[in-house]
Amino acid sequence: MSLDTRVAALDGLLEEAGLDAVLATRDASIAYLTGFWGMQLERFFGVVVKRGGEGALIAPSLDRESVATAPTALDKTLYSAGVSNGLPELFATLDGAKRIGVEEDHLIFARSKALAEAGYELVPASSLVMHLREAKQADEAAAVRRACGHLQDAYDELWGGLEIGHTEAETNARVAYLLARRGGKHAEPHILFGTNAALPHGSPGERKLEAGDIVCADIAAQFDGYWGDMTRCAHAGSPSDWAGKAWDVVFEAYTAAVAMTRLGATTKGVDAAQRDIIEAHPDLGACLHGAGHAIGTEIHEPPFLVPSSDVSLREGMIFTVEPGIYHSEFGGIRLEDDVMVGPDGPVLLSDYPLQLRVIG
Amino acid sequence: MSLDTRVAALDGLLEEAGLDAVLATRDASIAYLTGFWGMQLERFFGVVVKRGGEGALIAPSLDRESVATAPTALDKTLYSAGVSNGLPELFATLDGAKRIGVEEDHLIFARSKALAEAGYELVPASSLVMHLREAKQADEAAAVRRACGHLQDAYDELWGGLEIGHTEAETNARVAYLLARRGGKHAEPHILFGTNAALPHGSPGERKLEAGDIVCADIAAQFDGYWGDMTRCAHAGSPSDWAGKAWDVVFEAYTAAVAMTRLGATTKGVDAAQRDIIEAHPDLGACLHGAGHAIGTEIHEPPFLVPSSDVSLREGMIFTVEPGIYHSEFGGIRLEDDVMVGPDGPVLLSDYPLQLRVIG
Repeated sequence: MSLDTRVAALDGLLEEAGLDAVLATRDASIAYLTGFWGMQLERFFGVVVKRGGEGALIAPSLDRESVATAPTALDKTLYSAGVSNGLPELFATLDGAKRIGVEEDHLIFARSKALAEAGYELVPASSLVMHLREAKQADEAAAVRRACGHLQDAYDELWGGLEIGHTEAETNARVAYLLARRGGKHAEPHILFGTNAALPHGSPGERKLEAGDIVCADIAAQFDGYWGDMTRCAHAGSPSDWAGKAWDVVFEAYTAAVAMTRLGATTKGVDAAQRDIIEAHPDLGACLHGAGHAIGTEIHEPPFLVPSSDVSLREGMIFTVEPGIYHSEFGGIRLEDDVMVGPDGPVLLSDYPLQLRVIG
Repeated sequence: MSLDTRVAALDGLLEEAGLDAVLATRDASIAYLTGFWGMQLERFFGVVVKRGGEGALIAPSLDRESVATAPTALDKTLYSAGVSNGLPELFATLDGAKRIGVEEDHLIFARSKALAEAGYELVPASSLVMHLREAKQADEAAAVRRACGHLQDAYDELWGGLEIGHTEAETNARVAYLLARRGGKHAEPHILFGTNAALPHGSPGERKLEAGDIVCADIAAQFDGYWGDMTRCAHAGSPSDWAGKAWDVVFEAYTAAVAMTRLGATTKGVDAAQRDIIEAHPDLGACLHGAGHAIGTEIHEPPFLVPSSDVSLREGMIFTVEPGIYHSEFGGIRLEDDVMVGPDGPVLLSDYPLQLRVIG
């Protein structure tokens, strides 16, 4: 789908939603609609699409050159961040529109307050933008697949080089380097050893790899605007009794959740497919998170594969499927791949052996 | 200042501000008040401090272990992200409070709307939290100085290894690795060659370093919770006429702006000190951004050194001072150090030769 088609498709949703315009502010939504990736920090960036398809990309003049080359047919409005916060330029662009759809999970309170005080009526519209973004086209699936290909190369180098005595910090730094060298942006390796892996969001530190440790290696990066996100595990020395059993359970949960990532299923259904299996083994550890999240131009996109989300899966949605089991004494095991909802069932966009590797 | 003292100091500001409580949601504000660094993504994290100093750190149960070890005396409230969005737990914590100060430049519209609909009156209070955060204590200045020390080591390795023919991508990947190996988080090297450096926010790519190129090397990373952020420049081969002249102008602007980073000056005054000098040389390039920004637990903090900001500098504020000049034909030159407002004048927290290096 071309950028113009995306803008037209968004315009096509406005009437039914009773909106005069949409203001997209997320970096990834802006990129999706205009091809422009900004560096947002504290400055205002936005894309306005008004009923009829007119609108503008609004950005600080600091980004003028990248704005100039953005392949969008929308107007381009620059403001000088030294003298404007971008809102006067936003109001001028919205001219005449009153009911404005906004990305309610991104727009900050200060800007929503200023818009409300200027007389605009704000309506949550993340779901409208995500309705477009969530159904990926073939070129987008191919981009996620390419990103996963780079991750898989990084796994090869990780497993080839990891030795007892290496620290988490150096291991993560090395994998980040491998990804950046391949053109990956925002590389987020999250490789944890032993009991540190019992925290899915633990922070890699000076912990050294010891014999008997589990290695839980979550690796993600963005390539050409699209993310890949995978997790594989290894064991330093022959797997312990816990590691062998826990891995089997996670593999079973992974298999069930991947199989459920298909038309006719719901987000909470995919989650239940893995949760029921993990939670049947409390002796091996706890189920600390949902089955995964959508992925694309952002690493975490809605919908989320969690018990509280009841969204029917649509063709082209791409999810991480990543069940895990966590035990404070032994660590954690997780398996993660990126899976597209295809017309005939789940399509794996990553293709890498699942086995529990043995290090040393 | 201990964490308890920070919470007490925030409590001490509530009465005069007419607030019943403050809800801090920024990662860096949460860390400042509780010592807890979360991994926020789409999930709700917050710290509530109510009049009288009671309150809680609220986080998803996924982060339970890091919450458990957070060295705060506030209550700790966990919610299961699978079944709650954290707001019921927030409302229970706010119990009895009505006028709530929020970080208006961070709280998202969806949550502000839910709070308003639950009857809370939201008041922008970023400035209240930042009033505490912006005046750094000696231990915080020391942490920024240590971070800059790591950056300086990375510069040594960068200049020692950079050769004609290297790409921007591999150069940035290598520096990110050097920083990560030293324990740096969120390493953000932004090293651009030749005309690519004409864009202060340009994206490092496959451009190779050629003889005659300027190298603009902006390097930042967070160490032990505090950021350092520096920029130095080099030239591949003897500096061109433009590079020599532009460097002298930026050095003059840098010197003037650093000297102005002192008690009695204002944010826009520091900006004017550099801007007046850069803008006096339109033949050499344009002034594309302000003089800098505060820095601490975040890389970009208010106040910002821009023409539209008229804040009086206070003792302990730490700013990046980073004037630059940008010319689309030749590239860009920027010099950046981290400068604290000391009782007797500006205190440089980075200490590295400013000279225009020559590569090759």
